[in-house]
Amino acid sequence: MPRYKLTIEYDGGPFKGFQLQQTAPSVQGALERAILGFSGEAARVHVAGRTDTGVHATAQVIHFELTKAWRTDVVRDAINAHLVPEPVSVLSAERAEDDFHARFSATGRSYLYRVLDRKAPPAIERSRVWWVKTPLDVEAMQAAAQALVGTHDFTTFRDMHCQSRSPLKTLKVAEVHRVGIEVHLVFAARSFLHRQVRSMTGSLVEVGAGRWSVDRLREALEARDRRACGQVAPPDGLYLTGVDYTPVDYVMPEVAQPTT
Amino acid sequence: MPRYKLTIEYDGGPFKGFQLQQTAPSVQGALERAILGFSGEAARVHVAGRTDTGVHATAQVIHFELTKAWRTDVVRDAINAHLVPEPVSVLSAERAEDDFHARFSATGRSYLYRVLDRKAPPAIERSRVWWVKTPLDVEAMQAAAQALVGTHDFTTFRDMHCQSRSPLKTLKVAEVHRVGIEVHLVFAARSFLHRQVRSMTGSLVEVGAGRWSVDRLREALEARDRRACGQVAPPDGLYLTGVDYTPVDYVMPEVAQPTT
Repeated sequence: MPRYKLTIEYDGGPFKGFQLQQTAPSVQGALERAILGFSGEAARVHVAGRTDTGVHATAQVIHFELTKAWRTDVVRDAINAHLVPEPVSVLSAERAEDDFHARFSATGRSYLYRVLDRKAPPAIERSRVWWVKTPLDVEAMQAAAQALVGTHDFTTFRDMHCQSRSPLKTLKVAEVHRVGIEVHLVFAARSFLHRQVRSMTGSLVEVGAGRWSVDRLREALEARDRRACGQVAPPDGLYLTGVDYTPVDYVMPEVAQPTT
Repeated sequence: MPRYKLTIEYDGGPFKGFQLQQTAPSVQGALERAILGFSGEAARVHVAGRTDTGVHATAQVIHFELTKAWRTDVVRDAINAHLVPEPVSVLSAERAEDDFHARFSATGRSYLYRVLDRKAPPAIERSRVWWVKTPLDVEAMQAAAQALVGTHDFTTFRDMHCQSRSPLKTLKVAEVHRVGIEVHLVFAARSFLHRQVRSMTGSLVEVGAGRWSVDRLREALEARDRRACGQVAPPDGLYLTGVDYTPVDYVMPEVAQPTT
């Protein structure tokens, strides 16, 4: 059956997360309804990275199969027409190989976290940024973020309900910059633990606000203890910004590395 | 009486414009309620530039008087607390001279218009940008925009209901740039006619989409005829981004200039 790979954007605000639920609005539910509406087929949508309630995406990837081979621009435009008025949009649609899987073929995921640090609450970007009243020291956050890069046991920055078999992950990128009046945190890895980005962000904001030293963040990581985590950042500021499907020739084995 | 000057941000989406109305939500109504809530005083709010239904502001300016002299950070924080859950935020508050008037003391106003030109509708920025499906030629738009700069009779780009006594205005800045995936139009002038920015933007998008030549835009301006205007851009993409109170030593008299 023809398999379709779609890149989608959504505002996570009105949804109880990506995953289909019986009684609550979900991004998956909106997409499957739109696909049914345009094609008449009850396709099952598979996603690169499930996002939690309130988390946004600028370039999430999904795949599904239909019995009919459609032109990909028709797939994009017809699903978009059926998505109205949901805040979900198909940016592009393409045909994928039969063995392509949005989740299992992915070799990298990128996230952006937006923080607005000022005295006044956001009006226009409300529910799209995390509002922090304390001015943040971006250089200290950037220094602390470097302690997180590499292969580590991220138990400290992992939600209690995380389903992952191992707490070992390899963080490839952790960068903190000021962009206009906001502070942006960018993270990239092959995959992340549940709430890892929000947990790391929450602790990095402790550093930025001057409540934690860079050393304390390093000690929190090394503690491998959830209780060592700072606050967990709210979903509002989190965006899944990209999924990579570049074949990886050599994947660093995810075994424990000395963290000192 | 102590006079206060506030710089405010708002999402125009839920409001029927800035101006107070009996039966519809307005930014002015939200502000006057919040001022009453914190101070117990029924102050009248004066604004630099009234915005229409759905138009946003990142730095609108208002003033009002209270009998009591408050600390300005208290004014900012207390009004913000009383504005919840309205999408209006006080960015800063300061004391102003007794002869300061948000509208009549202003010597310049700046607007940003955001256009998203892509096939897929906006999900995250919906109601914050104007979605145009045709790819826009930004260089052509920038060239056409230069025809608008200077002192002209802007009758073509003026709403039929405009209250201004004269259609003559001096446009100081008209710049069109691509910023990320969006096209941004920036305009600055001492003051604008009603719907002038949305009218100019709509016609510049005709140029960008290749339906109008640069010459046609110049001819539309010179026609001094509302019927020569292209489409009027929707309010969604429009932001009042600044109000200037720098004293102007020499104001160019608003008399007709040759437009050729």
